[in-house]
Amino acid sequence: MAKTKTIITFLLRLLAFGATLTATVVMVTSHDSAEVLNLKFSAKYSNSPAFNFPNIYLLVDKFWHRFYVIAEAIASGYGLIALFLCSKSSVERLMVILDVVIAMLLTSSISAALAEAEIGKKGNSHAGWLPICGQVPKFCDHVTGALIAGFVAAIVYLVLNLYSLIVVLAPFCPVKP
Amino acid sequence: MAKTKTIITFLLRLLAFGATLTATVVMVTSHDSAEVLNLKFSAKYSNSPAFNFPNIYLLVDKFWHRFYVIAEAIASGYGLIALFLCSKSSVERLMVILDVVIAMLLTSSISAALAEAEIGKKGNSHAGWLPICGQVPKFCDHVTGALIAGFVAAIVYLVLNLYSLIVVLAPFCPVKP
Repeated sequence: MAKTKTIITFLLRLLAFGATLTATVVMVTSHDSAEVLNLKFSAKYSNSPAFNFPNIYLLVDKFWHRFYVIAEAIASGYGLIALFLCSKSSVERLMVILDVVIAMLLTSSISAALAEAEIGKKGNSHAGWLPICGQVPKFCDHVTGALIAGFVAAIVYLVLNLYSLIVVLAPFCPVKP
Repeated sequence: MAKTKTIITFLLRLLAFGATLTATVVMVTSHDSAEVLNLKFSAKYSNSPAFNFPNIYLLVDKFWHRFYVIAEAIASGYGLIALFLCSKSSVERLMVILDVVIAMLLTSSISAALAEAEIGKKGNSHAGWLPICGQVPKFCDHVTGALIAGFVAAIVYLVLNLYSLIVVLAPFCPVKP
């Protein structure tokens, strides 16, 4: 029983680590450029204001996209450490708490990034914001990939939390199966 | 000791319930209009496309703002039930799990709404998106109030989760104080 738990937890952690690492790497390496009306548009995940004009850094110079990369990187780092520690029962209790914190961090970052990405993809005609994906499709594909990986990571952490909590709380359960 | 725990938990739940209820009500009642160049701009939390033209429903016709209201409303409903149930130890274990789920829901909704609100307030000059708060200040104040209440609720749920987990996990602790 304890062995099954260890294996399930390990597999979930491995999946979460893979997903967060993918999200970080794919988001950091995302860039694309396009020429429209002889103006060169560039899209990159981070902003560098000193770059040659005219450049349009789209969406991605925002605080939120940097927050996404930082959050996914923190989750990757934690995930890697957790992979090696998860069989040690002395830190298991601390990890239940850390898992909840990391899950909230991931949920927060993916929601913010999705909200921005939706505007980037569809625009908002009511507010006069134009969609930008037609101009920089390669960049958008990269960001979409990173967001899918981040979404998978958030779901895996939710499952991991529910599983650990149920296992941890089971001995307290007033009704024994 | 058990009494202190009950009182702290009850107060945290009361605070969380107040914050989520405020966030829901303030967001739902937010609306404002402004006249710019003889065009009437309206801002409301939900979109009704059949309304008299020319109207600009800003930001707020998005999926994410409705998601915000729905998430805060669910958290309010759960918070109200939890207030009456939190002293019953038979459901206490289930509530530890539900608290984590509600905390993730709140974190997700506040992050998405904050990301959009930031664009609404400051715009994004790189993507050609103009800020809208100068035109509809009353609406923006309302939304800001709702976001602050939602943020407080998310923080309170994080504290509540950490507190319950530490209390629940304490008996397992290998090192007794």
